[in-house]
Amino acid sequence: MSATARGEDVAQRQEGTPMNDIDVYQRQGLGRPSGLGRRCGLVLVDFVNGFVDPALLGGRHVADAAARTLPLLQAFRGLGLPVAHSRVVFAADGSDHNMFCRKAPALTRFTEEAECSQILPLLAPEAGERIVRKQSASAFFATGLADWLRARGVDTAVVVGCTTSGCVRATAVDAMQHDFMTVVVEDCVGDRAQGPHDASLFDLRQKYADVMDRDALLSAIS
Amino acid sequence: MSATARGEDVAQRQEGTPMNDIDVYQRQGLGRPSGLGRRCGLVLVDFVNGFVDPALLGGRHVADAAARTLPLLQAFRGLGLPVAHSRVVFAADGSDHNMFCRKAPALTRFTEEAECSQILPLLAPEAGERIVRKQSASAFFATGLADWLRARGVDTAVVVGCTTSGCVRATAVDAMQHDFMTVVVEDCVGDRAQGPHDASLFDLRQKYADVMDRDALLSAIS
Amino acid sequence: MSATARGEDVAQRQEGTPMNDIDVYQRQGLGRPSGLGRRCGLVLVDFVNGFVDPALLGGRHVADAAARTLPLLQAFRGLGLPVAHSRVVFAADGSDHNMFCRKAPALTRFTEEAECSQILPLLAPEAGERIVRKQSASAFFATGLADWLRARGVDTAVVVGCTTSGCVRATAVDAMQHDFMTVVVEDCVGDRAQGPHDASLFDLRQKYADVMDRDALLSAIS
Amino acid sequence: MSATARGEDVAQRQEGTPMNDIDVYQRQGLGRPSGLGRRCGLVLVDFVNGFVDPALLGGRHVADAAARTLPLLQAFRGLGLPVAHSRVVFAADGSDHNMFCRKAPALTRFTEEAECSQILPLLAPEAGERIVRKQSASAFFATGLADWLRARGVDTAVVVGCTTSGCVRATAVDAMQHDFMTVVVEDCVGDRAQGPHDASLFDLRQKYADVMDRDALLSAIS
Repeated sequence: MSATARGEDVAQRQEGTPMNDIDVYQRQGLGRPSGLGRRCGLVLVDFVNGFVDPALLGGRHVADAAARTLPLLQAFRGLGLPVAHSRVVFAADGSDHNMFCRKAPALTRFTEEAECSQILPLLAPEAGERIVRKQSASAFFATGLADWLRARGVDTAVVVGCTTSGCVRATAVDAMQHDFMTVVVEDCVGDRAQGPHDASLFDLRQKYADVMDRDALLSAIS
Repeated sequence: MSATARGEDVAQRQEGTPMNDIDVYQRQGLGRPSGLGRRCGLVLVDFVNGFVDPALLGGRHVADAAARTLPLLQAFRGLGLPVAHSRVVFAADGSDHNMFCRKAPALTRFTEEAECSQILPLLAPEAGERIVRKQSASAFFATGLADWLRARGVDTAVVVGCTTSGCVRATAVDAMQHDFMTVVVEDCVGDRAQGPHDASLFDLRQKYADVMDRDALLSAIS
Repeated sequence: MSATARGEDVAQRQEGTPMNDIDVYQRQGLGRPSGLGRRCGLVLVDFVNGFVDPALLGGRHVADAAARTLPLLQAFRGLGLPVAHSRVVFAADGSDHNMFCRKAPALTRFTEEAECSQILPLLAPEAGERIVRKQSASAFFATGLADWLRARGVDTAVVVGCTTSGCVRATAVDAMQHDFMTVVVEDCVGDRAQGPHDASLFDLRQKYADVMDRDALLSAIS
Repeated sequence: MSATARGEDVAQRQEGTPMNDIDVYQRQGLGRPSGLGRRCGLVLVDFVNGFVDPALLGGRHVADAAARTLPLLQAFRGLGLPVAHSRVVFAADGSDHNMFCRKAPALTRFTEEAECSQILPLLAPEAGERIVRKQSASAFFATGLADWLRARGVDTAVVVGCTTSGCVRATAVDAMQHDFMTVVVEDCVGDRAQGPHDASLFDLRQKYADVMDRDALLSAIS
């Protein structure tokens, strides 16, 4: 195994890496805004107990992101805009365990009835909101979510939740791939560490999504 | 637009961000190896002229990654293992332009006949190798690549190409989501800047793939 | 609305339609066998209470098909081959109602807890068998079933269940599209009427699957 | 191989099968209209030379269906509604040959440059119309067509082409599965034999689509 295959080394190397070669993005014309369309849908990625709790798979910023999401969720509800929630749910008998579980064994605790897989009470779904159970990173993967949003007239996917460098990013990339205008709300997403959080927001903004803060988005849709 | 929506600010912030909260990954049991299965398939992501050329969408490390990939490609060919190449190809009449084009307008130059969309002569496909034309980040998205690999007995997807933080990462995440054991060959992937390259290798290793260097992989499969 | 848009007329026309132009299939080289591969997986499509009961969405042949399926299921279990069951399940709050529900409103009664959506006790899943909840015709659509079968080494999908001209056919066509060798077991599939059952078996055999009877399949895999 | 696995026997049995048990569909509430939405998109399935020619894979009704489709295509163009065409295209080196080719070997002649895979001159695509190359039955399978239509505001998929019991049916079922309101235009679809054509229109009307004739559709959208 190469030196960089060990996490600590990568972290040290990343810490020392200057980002001063970053202006190539501008020269290549990346980072153009995709903008907001006519109808937004809100996708809350994995705001469940187990991703708030640092003892399980959570991060220190996730609870804050959830608290900041509440007014956004209320705004979508008030405007009658579609809302979808994702949960990680694996079968208790292990019948659907996959490579994601092999990389991150703690995921297997997220069964249908487990406390860790329940959506945060603060953001509990209301009737008519879609709940997708997923076994992958992206909330779109093998869930039918793209069709569900489209059938409700959504052309712009607004993504919040956790973790920024994990399921949020995978979901936002898939939203773009399904040809939605895509917004990631930077103060409504959280991660287990700051570096990966920042790096993914950078990539998302350059290539896949518009990264906005919550209040700017609230102003734009109200 | 928030302060962090401007690329320079993000880059500065990322540069100064310590990765010293990174040990949470180990505490949460992330980064377990997924391992190699019984049969590998090689996926070369976007090794085309336009991603070598920094004046278009290329990066300074991509040509090096391509050169290092050649012996790996030759090994797969020698072993009779399946090989697939992806190219970005958009219609000349613009009929399939999408959000990816809106974020990165230079992509629209990658038409079927354009010089920039041709696979590097060094790595030119041989008869029987699959060429997938894609309009998205992931080589798996809307291309049938997962089924093609599986039908040829592949259980392990080996991903090389460019860019690390873009189409390589999206392809590797999708490989894992399709339940392949997934390997990213770290010295056979390249990007337009070092920071995003390193950050994506870190995330890939922690959650989605085994990150190996080429010679270790060559030893393992030979 | 045209004359043929009325069901009775179509039925009458179909009844009187000679199939004597059917030899074109042979002249065009259709109907070649795809054969059995190295490892079969069994997909039981919608063997649930509501598709046995003619007062809901069932057909008179479905209970017989289920009874004949039991020895096949036992054989797969005995051989340690992968088994998957599909159920139609819609959300009780209507959040996932779709066009399928609009064409066939009775589908909305198939909620998670409803009696009609429970798998027949005779064929009740055992631990480790995959249960896919679906809102569409095909058991592969937006369920991840293809990846699940492939990850367990399956190259041949054996399809049984109901209804032949509905979810069985859609599932078998998708199995072929995912590049599985596909077998439809003709005495283990049932429908609500004989004409559509026969017509779909004809189409399946010509273009998508091998149509075998149960005992021939049992001999082949044992 | 069982008796019914031989095409001739099935044809004879189907010929003699009364459709008099067909009233079960009405009792079970099937066949409800899904209706037209706000914006139609036209999907022309496989109107290529090789499906008109009975010596290859064509049927006697396909040329008539194409002729009747022209005014419909002109109407969509006049109204500025999205239009997509599908072609079967396999790689000349056989690299993407699949189970569909095994069932119907003549498909392998449909290469990019082959005369048989070219769209009929009568219905030749105009700039801006989408052309999807497919290796499967459904024009939606692994092509990104659903996202393309949705991104252009389409909520209603109008399906024409050939063959009715093959790629048209698979495409219409997938349109419904992607939650489009779906219309099959019965005098703009054709097949290689009458029995399978009629049987598929019956199934489509009962469970997946509205079956309309062309003039009724033209009146509705004009």
